[in-house]
Amino acid sequence: MEKIKSKSTALILIDVQKGFDSNYWGVRNNLDAEKNMQRLLLHWRENKMPIVHVKHVSTEPESPLRPTQDGNDFKPEVEPLQGEHIEEKNVNSAFIGTGLEKYLRQNNIGKVVLVGLTTDHCVSTTTRMAANLGFDTYVISDATATFNRTALDGKNLDADSVHEFALASLNGEFATVVDTNAVLHLLDKNSD
Amino acid sequence: MEKIKSKSTALILIDVQKGFDSNYWGVRNNLDAEKNMQRLLLHWRENKMPIVHVKHVSTEPESPLRPTQDGNDFKPEVEPLQGEHIEEKNVNSAFIGTGLEKYLRQNNIGKVVLVGLTTDHCVSTTTRMAANLGFDTYVISDATATFNRTALDGKNLDADSVHEFALASLNGEFATVVDTNAVLHLLDKNSD
Repeated sequence: MEKIKSKSTALILIDVQKGFDSNYWGVRNNLDAEKNMQRLLLHWRENKMPIVHVKHVSTEPESPLRPTQDGNDFKPEVEPLQGEHIEEKNVNSAFIGTGLEKYLRQNNIGKVVLVGLTTDHCVSTTTRMAANLGFDTYVISDATATFNRTALDGKNLDADSVHEFALASLNGEFATVVDTNAVLHLLDKNSD
Repeated sequence: MEKIKSKSTALILIDVQKGFDSNYWGVRNNLDAEKNMQRLLLHWRENKMPIVHVKHVSTEPESPLRPTQDGNDFKPEVEPLQGEHIEEKNVNSAFIGTGLEKYLRQNNIGKVVLVGLTTDHCVSTTTRMAANLGFDTYVISDATATFNRTALDGKNLDADSVHEFALASLNGEFATVVDTNAVLHLLDKNSD
């Protein structure tokens, strides 16, 4: 696997907000995701690598992510530090209606490492657009999570399976999907 | 369900090209997809509704969809008629590097009905962007198809399941997912 060049590699944290703890969304998988996001965030901060925090500002009247609600706040594990770049969005893709693409291009960032919520909705949509816009895209399997979904025939699809299928459809086509240990190992091999 | 207004509703056929008959892609589900696409195409033509044919012009050296190959040609079931709109793309999303969004806006098309190949790659990516760009988006479950994928642990994920999970992740969040009979029924109820 190709080495990751540190200074041109952004960590993008997608929608890691308190509102996802609400029962509104269903049953979640991978409750360790935030712990892994935190490990990655620490590495990026220690190495002064670019970080982007994406916040979903929902326009849905019932969403726990709408503004003025506590649920709109970032989770404490990934709370941005002063000066870290924040992009607000109100659709799934962090590239639509935001300055994300311009920010990445202006800072000569060619590689993006995506983590956050949820695997098959906002993470997957942002991954697909990142890849199609020409960014070399990584998704971290154990630093993402999702919820159960309902199949067309009404059958419940459990969150672990939704997560597994979403990552399988991304891997190789849109992104390199690896876990937190693997991406940290790749980064440690670089002196850049 | 809301009625579909005929003249502002485009049928978008994604990557329905001969190259998808190659063994290159794996094992496919829903071999009836092209028959259902043809039924929809006939309805759109009879009612003089807008049609967009999207063709993937691959830049991958091994892809059966690269230009100058027979595989790049549209399948005979959905061969465009003279004057029907064609968009060429070389990434998954039919909205990136194409004139699709401009065409839809200039023609006051607010609803899009998506069919084609493959459910979890180009159809899903185009659906997500259509929705996030503000189009009212329908995906036709039995007029799309996909191939088996490999999970991160190496397990084979059969094409029917990949299709099912991809549509479950789209339905309600990005699109209304219905079958061919249902969308034709919705269209027949309109006198627009």
